[in-house]
Amino acid sequence: MSITETRPVDGGIAAPRGFRAAGVACGIKASGARDLTLVVAEHPVSAAAVFTTNLAQAAPILVSRDRLAASGGHAAAIVVNSGCANACTGADGMAHANAMADLTAAALGVDPSVVLVASTGVIGVKLEMGKVARGIDLAKDALSTSGGADAALGIMTTDPFPKEVALEIVSSKGTFRVGGIAKGSGMIEPMMATMLGFITTDAGVAPGLLQRALRAAVEDTFNSITVDGECSTNDCVFALASGASGVSLEATDLRLLVDALRAACEPLAIGIVRGGEGATKLITVNVGGARSDSDAKRTARAIANSPLVKTAIHGGDPNWGRLVAVAGRSGAAFSLDRAVVKIGDVELFSEGTPHDERAPEAADYLTGREIEVFVDLGTGGQGQARIWTCDLSAEYVRINAEYRT
Amino acid sequence: MSITETRPVDGGIAAPRGFRAAGVACGIKASGARDLTLVVAEHPVSAAAVFTTNLAQAAPILVSRDRLAASGGHAAAIVVNSGCANACTGADGMAHANAMADLTAAALGVDPSVVLVASTGVIGVKLEMGKVARGIDLAKDALSTSGGADAALGIMTTDPFPKEVALEIVSSKGTFRVGGIAKGSGMIEPMMATMLGFITTDAGVAPGLLQRALRAAVEDTFNSITVDGECSTNDCVFALASGASGVSLEATDLRLLVDALRAACEPLAIGIVRGGEGATKLITVNVGGARSDSDAKRTARAIANSPLVKTAIHGGDPNWGRLVAVAGRSGAAFSLDRAVVKIGDVELFSEGTPHDERAPEAADYLTGREIEVFVDLGTGGQGQARIWTCDLSAEYVRINAEYRT
Repeated sequence: MSITETRPVDGGIAAPRGFRAAGVACGIKASGARDLTLVVAEHPVSAAAVFTTNLAQAAPILVSRDRLAASGGHAAAIVVNSGCANACTGADGMAHANAMADLTAAALGVDPSVVLVASTGVIGVKLEMGKVARGIDLAKDALSTSGGADAALGIMTTDPFPKEVALEIVSSKGTFRVGGIAKGSGMIEPMMATMLGFITTDAGVAPGLLQRALRAAVEDTFNSITVDGECSTNDCVFALASGASGVSLEATDLRLLVDALRAACEPLAIGIVRGGEGATKLITVNVGGARSDSDAKRTARAIANSPLVKTAIHGGDPNWGRLVAVAGRSGAAFSLDRAVVKIGDVELFSEGTPHDERAPEAADYLTGREIEVFVDLGTGGQGQARIWTCDLSAEYVRINAEYRT
Repeated sequence: MSITETRPVDGGIAAPRGFRAAGVACGIKASGARDLTLVVAEHPVSAAAVFTTNLAQAAPILVSRDRLAASGGHAAAIVVNSGCANACTGADGMAHANAMADLTAAALGVDPSVVLVASTGVIGVKLEMGKVARGIDLAKDALSTSGGADAALGIMTTDPFPKEVALEIVSSKGTFRVGGIAKGSGMIEPMMATMLGFITTDAGVAPGLLQRALRAAVEDTFNSITVDGECSTNDCVFALASGASGVSLEATDLRLLVDALRAACEPLAIGIVRGGEGATKLITVNVGGARSDSDAKRTARAIANSPLVKTAIHGGDPNWGRLVAVAGRSGAAFSLDRAVVKIGDVELFSEGTPHDERAPEAADYLTGREIEVFVDLGTGGQGQARIWTCDLSAEYVRINAEYRT
C-alpha cells in the first residue's frame, strides 16, 4: 500500500484525468491580469476542504462550507477570483459569493450545491458581479485539459510567480495522478492563512476519506509555513477526487493517499514561502529535542515568525543568540545548558556556551538562498518539527505600507 | 490614601532622597559612549524586581534573583552595563555576573548580597572584566545626586534617546518622590523584553509590599508595550525604596503606591516604544467589547505585533481590514457582525460592513506621529485593554539585519 515512484508530469491541476481548468481576465484587477479561475470535474466528484480558523470569515468561506455540507462532500467545480477578497462585505458579500457559485452552476449545468467558491485580494471591497459573470462565461469557454497554467495565474495577487504541481503516483494500488495550484503571498501563517490551495486527483476516494487525508497532508505542508504570522479571512484548501484513473483507494490506503496529497501540497507550500512578500531566502526551521512534537512546532513557529531572526538571516548575520532567545520565550520546555543551535551544519551554541570562532563559516553559509537552522531544545525528549518561512526584508515593508494607498 | 498632585521634578533616578547615581564610559562599547551605570542607596533599602519570563535567562538575571532572595528583598546598589548582555555565556558568564556584583559591593563597602546586577547588549559575548572593574571604580567616584542623566545614558544600546523620569507625588500620606530610567529598543514585548527599568522612591515601603506594587505597575506599563514581539534573555525592572522622605506606606496604601510607581513607569515604557528600532509613530491599540480583560489584551497584543498592521500604519494606509483579520485570528471571542474598528475617531467598519467613504479622513489622521486604533470585538462583554507599540519601517529591517556584522 505504498508509493513506489513519483514522477512529475505536465498539466498542473488539470493533469489528473477527469478535470479541466481555465484562468481568464475579467477586469477585477485593474492591471488586466488574469483574475478568475475555474476548475471543473466531468461530473460531481468527492470533495474535501480545510478552511481558515480566523473567526472573521469571508463570505466565500461561509458559502463553500455550506455547499460542501449540503452536497455531502461532492463538487463538480471550483470558481475563484483574485483582486477582491469579498471579506467584511456584510450581507452583500454573502449574496455575491452565493451568486458567483450559482452563476457557475448555471453555466455548467450542474446543481448549485456542487460548486465551491473562493476569493483573494483586498478586504472590505465588494465584488463587481458584472465582471464576475463575464469571467465565468469566458472561463467556461476556455476550459481545457491544458488550462492548468492559466488557472494558476488566475488566483495570484502579489505572488511573484505562479505555483502549480502535477505528479504521477505509481503505487501498489495502481498509477494515478495528483495536481494542484496555490497562491500566497502575505498573511501566511500556520492555521491557514490568504493562502488558497486547490488539489485534484484521479484516484477514486470517498468524501470522508478524502477529508481525513487532506487534513493530514495540510498539517505538514500548508499548515507548516509562515510568511508573517498572519492568518487571513479567506484561506482554504480544496481537494477533488475524480476516480477517472480507475484506481480506487479505501480506508486501508489512508497513508498512501496522505503521502500522495502531501507530495503535491509540499512543493506548493514551499512555493508560497519562496514567493513570500519581499522574500529573498527560503528558511527551513528544524526543532528537535523537544518534550513533544507540539512543543517543537510551537518553537519552530515562534522562530519562523520572529522579526529578529528573519532580519538577521536577511542580513546574513549568524546571530544564534536570537534563536536561543526565541526558543526560550516560545512557551516550550527548554534547557539552556543542553540546548544546541546550528545554522546549516555549523554548530554555534552548545553546552551553554557560544562557538563564535565558527561564525565566519556560518556567515558564508548564509549568503545562500536556501537556509536551514536547527535548535535542539535540550529537554532530552524526542519531539521534533519543521516549519518553512522566508526572510524579512525592507521590501516586505514597502509592499505592505503601500498595498492600498 | 490617594494622589492629590503629581509634578515633574529634575534629577531622574537620583531625584528621590537617599539615592545617588552615575553613568560612565569604561570601554565595553567600541564607540566610547557611556556603558556602565551605578545607582546607590545610602544604606540597604527595600528592593523588588520583575524578571524576564524567557527560559533562556542571562547570568545577571540569575545572579540578581539569587541575591534578592538572599538579602530578603534588600539592596544598596544596582550596577548595569550596556554593550554586552552576558547571556548564553555559560559558567564564565555566571562568574562574571557574580564578580561584577562583588566588585561593586567591595567598592561601596556593602554586603555582596545587597548588590543587584543587569546587563544589556549583544548575546553570547563575554564581559571584559578589566573594563567592568575600571567602570565600577569610575562610577563610584562619579556618584552624585545629579548623576541621573548620565545613569540614563549608561544603559542605552540602540536606543535613540535616553529615558528618564522624576516625579513629586503629593498624597494624603505626605509628599514623596519617584524616579527612574529605562532602555529599549528592540526585543520589546509584553512579558518583559531587553528592556531594563530601574525605579527609585524615597517613600518607605516594606519589601513584600514593594514587590506587589511593582508587579502591578509593570503589568500596565512595561508589560503593555511591544516593539517586535520579542522577549529577551535579560529583561528586568528593579525598584528601590529608601524611606528618606519620611513618608511610610503600609499595605492599606497599596493603590497609592501602585499609582505612584505607574506614574513613573508609564512615561518610561512609552519612551521605549517611541524609541523602538526604526519607529516613526507611537501607536496606542485599544480593544473593548471583549469577553474579558485578558481576551482584550490578547487581541491588543496580536494587533500591536502584527507586521501587516504596523506596516500599514507606517505607510499611512487606513487598512481597517487588517485590524479585523488580526482580531479574528487572535484567539479571543469575536463577532464579525457586531465588531467595530476605528482609526483615531473615524469609524471605518461596523455592523459587518465597511465605511470606506471615511477612509480619506482616516488617512489624513494617519499622517500624525501619535496614532490610536480601536477594535470592539463585538461580544457585548466589558473586557478592555490598551497596548502601546510602534510602526514597522524599512529602518527596523536595516538595523536588525546589520546589528552584529
